[in-house]
Parts: sequence; C-alpha cells; structure tokens
Amino acid sequence: VTKKLLVLPGDGIGPEVMNEVARVVAWMGRARGIAFDISEDLVGGASLAVHGVPIRDEVIVAARAADAVLFGSVGDPKWASVGFDLRPEVAILKLRQELGLFANLRPAKVFDALAEASTLKPEVVAGLDIMIVRESVGGIYFGTPRGIETLPDGTKRGINTEIYTTPEIERVARVAFDLARQRGNRVCSVEKCNVMESGLLWKQVVTELHAREYADVELTHMLADNCAMQLVRNPRQFDVIVTGNLFGDLLSDLASMLTGSLGMLPSATLGAVDAEGRRPALYEPIHGSAPDIAGKGIANPLAQILSFAMLLRYSFGMEEEAALIEQAVANVLASGLRTADIMSPGMAQVGTSVMGEAVVRELDKL
Amino acid sequence: VTKKLLVLPGDGIGPEVMNEVARVVAWMGRARGIAFDISEDLVGGASLAVHGVPIRDEVIVAARAADAVLFGSVGDPKWASVGFDLRPEVAILKLRQELGLFANLRPAKVFDALAEASTLKPEVVAGLDIMIVRESVGGIYFGTPRGIETLPDGTKRGINTEIYTTPEIERVARVAFDLARQRGNRVCSVEKCNVMESGLLWKQVVTELHAREYADVELTHMLADNCAMQLVRNPRQFDVIVTGNLFGDLLSDLASMLTGSLGMLPSATLGAVDAEGRRPALYEPIHGSAPDIAGKGIANPLAQILSFAMLLRYSFGMEEEAALIEQAVANVLASGLRTADIMSPGMAQVGTSVMGEAVVRELDKL
Ligand SMILES: CC(C)[C@H](C(=O)O)[C@@H](O)C(=O)O
Ligand SMILES: CC(C)[C@H](C(=O)O)[C@@H](O)C(=O)O
Repeated sequence: VTKKLLVLPGDGIGPEVMNEVARVVAWMGRARGIAFDISEDLVGGASLAVHGVPIRDEVIVAARAADAVLFGSVGDPKWASVGFDLRPEVAILKLRQELGLFANLRPAKVFDALAEASTLKPEVVAGLDIMIVRESVGGIYFGTPRGIETLPDGTKRGINTEIYTTPEIERVARVAFDLARQRGNRVCSVEKCNVMESGLLWKQVVTELHAREYADVELTHMLADNCAMQLVRNPRQFDVIVTGNLFGDLLSDLASMLTGSLGMLPSATLGAVDAEGRRPALYEPIHGSAPDIAGKGIANPLAQILSFAMLLRYSFGMEEEAALIEQAVANVLASGLRTADIMSPGMAQVGTSVMGEAVVRELDKL
Repeated sequence: VTKKLLVLPGDGIGPEVMNEVARVVAWMGRARGIAFDISEDLVGGASLAVHGVPIRDEVIVAARAADAVLFGSVGDPKWASVGFDLRPEVAILKLRQELGLFANLRPAKVFDALAEASTLKPEVVAGLDIMIVRESVGGIYFGTPRGIETLPDGTKRGINTEIYTTPEIERVARVAFDLARQRGNRVCSVEKCNVMESGLLWKQVVTELHAREYADVELTHMLADNCAMQLVRNPRQFDVIVTGNLFGDLLSDLASMLTGSLGMLPSATLGAVDAEGRRPALYEPIHGSAPDIAGKGIANPLAQILSFAMLLRYSFGMEEEAALIEQAVANVLASGLRTADIMSPGMAQVGTSVMGEAVVRELDKL
C-alpha cells in the first residue's frame, strides 16, 4: 500500500521548515524501507503569487485523495490588502472545512530540556501536558450571515455568526472523551454559557453525551474567561480541554506559549472515519508563518518534524517510527542544540538546516 | 451637590467585600467631610431569591439617576438551572447595556509588594501596567439573532451574532487613544481580522480614526490568538489594548491573572458624556463572586475598595481622595497583611474585615 502524502509548505518559514522534514522522510526510506508517494503544492500567499488564489480546487481534490496532508503555515503581510475572500488564511480554513477536519488536536507539552524557556515559574509548568481539542469547522469561523455592509447613512456593519448544532458538538466531544481515556481520563469543556446560547447548548450536549456514553471519564465545565485565567494560575489542573473554534484558537495558543516550547509543538486536525475506514487528516505546527524571520534560515523546524511524527502515528499507525522521531528530537535537545527561539545560556545556537541534520544524525544512532 | 451612589453588592463574596468599602466611605465623611447619598439594592442571585428576577427595572432607573454605581459581583451556581433570561449575570449585562456603558477599563497592574504572587517569573512581570479597554455593550454578547432552536429532526442549534458598527468601534477606540495619551502613548488594537469580517471592520475603523485624529499615538494591530500568546511571552510590550467584548473578556482576565494580583484589581465601565456633562459609570472588581469562598470572611476586599477609589477619580474628579485610598492599600500591603488569595511565606494572613479595618487605620495615618 503506498502512503500518499500531500505536502503544503505555504508561506513564511513554512517552506524552510518543510525542507527539514524532507530529510526525515528520506531517512525513513533509507533506514526503514518506508516509501511515501509525495506530492507538493502551493497554498496561501505562495499560491496567490502564482495562481491568484490562496488555494486551487485541484489542491482540495489532491488533499481528499491523499492519506494525509502535511501543512506548513499560511499568512503573509504582503497580502494584507487582498480581498477578504482571497487572503492567505483561506487556504487552511478551506482545507479544514472541505475535508471535514472537525477535531483540531493541540498538545501543550513542556519539553523537559526547555522548561526554563517558559516565562512561567518552573514549579508551575514542569511536566505540563495538556491536550486541547478544538472544534475546527464550525462556530463563528464559518457561520452565516457574515460580511460587512454599508448602511444608508454611510456607516458600516461587520457581522459574523456563531452556530453550533447537537451533532457538531457531539462528534468533537467524542474525540475529547476518547483521548482522555488514553491519558488522564479528565475532560474540561469550555464555553461562555453565561452569555451565549451557543455555549449553553454546547454545555448541555457535552453533559448529556457524557452521562450516556462516557460516565467513566471525569467531566468538568469552565467559562472561557476563567479558563484563560486558570491556564496561567495553575495549568497542570488540566488534562483534555474541549472547546469551540474561536475559544480554542486563543486558548490553545495561550497554552502552548505557557510551555516555552511554542516552536516545538505539532498539531493534528482529524475528520470522520468514512465507510472504507479512511480518515482525512492534516498535520501542522502550532506556530504561524513568522514572516519576520522568514528566509533567514533561523526558524525552528522541530514542530514541523514532530507534526510529521504525529502524522505517522495517527494516519498510518506507525507508532514505532513516530516514537523514533520524537526520541531523536529529545536527543538533539539534550545534546544542547537550540534554534534562536529556544536559545538559552550555555547552549549551542544553530540554524534551521543544522537542526534538521542533527535530527537525522540522531535517528541514525537509534 | 450631593454625590449619589448606587451600591449593588450582588452575590457570593460581593456583600462581604462591599462591607469593607462602607468603612472607607465612613472615613471620607469623618476625616474629609465628604458625604455621599447612598442607596443600596439587590442584583443577581440575591435579587432572584427575593424578587424572582436578576435585576428589577427600578434598579436600572436608580442606576441612571445615580452619579455612579458601585457593583460587587454576580453569579451563583445555585441558580444554574434558572432560565437563560433569568440568570444572575443578566444583572450586569443589563446595567451595561441600559446605561450605555460601552468602555470597560481593566487595568492589569502588578503591585510591587505582590510581584512574587504571579506564576510568571519576576523579571517578566515586574512593573507590568497594562490598560485593557474592552467594548462592553456590543459584539456577540448582545447581537441578534440569538437563541437555541430545535430542528425538525430533533437536533438543536445554538446561535449568537457578533455585530460591530463604525460608531460603536470609533467611540471605544477614542477612549483607548485618549487614555494612551495620558500613559505610554501606545495602543494595540486586537481582533481576528483574518477570520471575521467584524474584526476586519474593527481594524479598518480604528486605523482610519487614528489617521484622522490620533496620529500622535503609536497604533499597532494584533490578532487575538497572538495577543493571548504575547501576553504570556512578554506582557510588558503593551500599554493600552483596545478590543471587542468577547476577546476583552478573555484577554483582560488573562492579563490580570499574570499580575498575581487578581484579587486587587478594580475596573471602571464608562458611558458617553451627556448634554448636561454627566457620564454614567459603574465600578466593579475584576474578580467574580467566588462562590467557593463566600460567607467565610476570607475574601480580599481590596479590589472592591480600589474600585471605590477609581469611582472617586473618574466620576467625581476627587483625585486626592482616590490617591489616599491607593496609598493606604499600598501601606497595608507593605505592613505585611495578606488575605488568603495573596498570602506568601512570612506575611500575616488576615480575613476580610481585618483587611478593611487596616485600610482605614492607614487612612487615619495619612
Ligand atoms: C491562520 C488562521 C486562520 C488560523 C485560525 O485562526 O484557525 C490559525 O490561527 C490557527 O489557529 O490555526
Ligand atoms: C459575569 C459575566 C457576564 C461578565 C462578562 O462576561 O462580561 C464577567 O465575566 C466580566 O468579565 O465582567
């Protein structure tokens, strides 16, 4: 069975860090005899520059046909004044929606070797390991009516609509409960039910699903503002957090920054298993396109490499190979190599490709 | 001229901490000859218990007639299953909307004596002083259509609508720019313009207003997810942050938790100056009703006392008296008294009323 991968490096540092994944892919062929059928395409600003759109329909089709998508990042200030429907971010939003990738899994994990990089006190974050499950094809990101309209008096109105339905909430909550069973067995569901009816429904549906099918998992509820506070006050109280698209966007970025390892964190976005047992999936780093450091060869490639490890695990069941990559990354860190974003006194600062090469060298030793 | 105050203690620890403000009010009469015409009423769960509604129309009328409202906090798990329209939180939401209190000013400030209480490293938060200006009568909190509807197949749909108009954005941005001129002269406007048209309009309107009237102030723009990260990574980069209702809810709670002084932080919510020069205003602590510690006499009254100081400054121009209260609070902390929430080794732990009495004793010395 060939393993079909679609690689979409995107903008900014995306192509640079993706280059380093290519080394790991090559190693998999060389050392483990695992071949991938890889195609690559443009998305985001990179696609706008060549094709005039942030993502072509062919790319969506190719993504559907692939077993997994490895995504870099999109977003580029160069395209700030392009129309709203043409902005680079449309690429990732369309991929999520068209492939039905409703569950965005965002681990916030402290790498022991990097704990000192956190702005939080070591005793607050040591060993931190949260999994945020963010709904990613619904909510205010996609609801209609939406847009900007001009009123008769010349003033303007910007409108967006948050919608969540019972099945949308249930399917993402299931992912969270299932994950919790393999981890700390605790789920915290986050909404703003004291202000928003969509949040009230969210809470009710999660509560009922829990009572029906997941009573063995510990379930708590938290308001989104309180969750933002609790993540700072005592982040280790959390195991799995499940929340909507917009809250998940903020809270997962917040949680990953707590770790001090933002440049290290991968993510997976999963769809529903279809009749043939196939599950669409996209893997991307938590970090963005970082246009300020793009092209300098200093970006940290480890989140992209770890996204590839996550891909091996979730899409191909290649647990052993995934663990090898993760071990190689841990060993590289232990050896003292650091890119600029995770640099600390006494360590050796290196660029993107030296870091990528080092991972492959560690893989060779394993 | 009598100074008409409406005092609304609300739920949980609200009444306890409000008791301590009464001591400070009494001191103002005794020591400075300043009398207030004070009336008090029930809101939130406290009002539900007696009147069956979270806030009566008479209370809104009284709030309009007052020169300023001093609010405690609302929210009580006892009322979790009351209908959505009757929940305790409706009290504060209605006050904000009916009085047109559109600018919620939330300082996130580190008290030197408490810097060690932060979960962040001291070198990251020392001297932190951010002012978050949160729009508070618009956005997804109030937009329609909203509600939960049952579809023909029995599933449910929860809906909320985010709306922002040019004038709504302009008036709150003005407050932010005006405040910035009295502080660090920098405003960061926060939205999610890469996903939401309401955020795109927000950014455009702030940009245009800035160019027209506030070009002397430094303006930057940030996406809300990035802002959540930057608040953890390097909070001191911010001076004034201006943002919508929902982002402001999360980001201001996050920012205040960074300080380690959550129980210390007051807030002001201001409306528009009317034809007679009157400006409706409400003052409340950032913290909530804390039902878990209500009735135990251990709550920290300092945020409520500092909210009263803010009231004196913003609603009555009594800068001198406001500064006296703030100095008294600083002296109490310097003397080593701490409530449980800000307790640290070597300090003397005291309850709510001992803390309140200590503030008055320090006022006597000034
Ligand atoms: C690029 C952007 C549209 C995206 C989002 O808001 O979902 C990003 O911030 C993310 O979290 O993956
Ligand atoms: C009590 C609640 C409705 C309120 C809000 O969400 O605005 C509170 O969290 C706040 O921030 O003042």
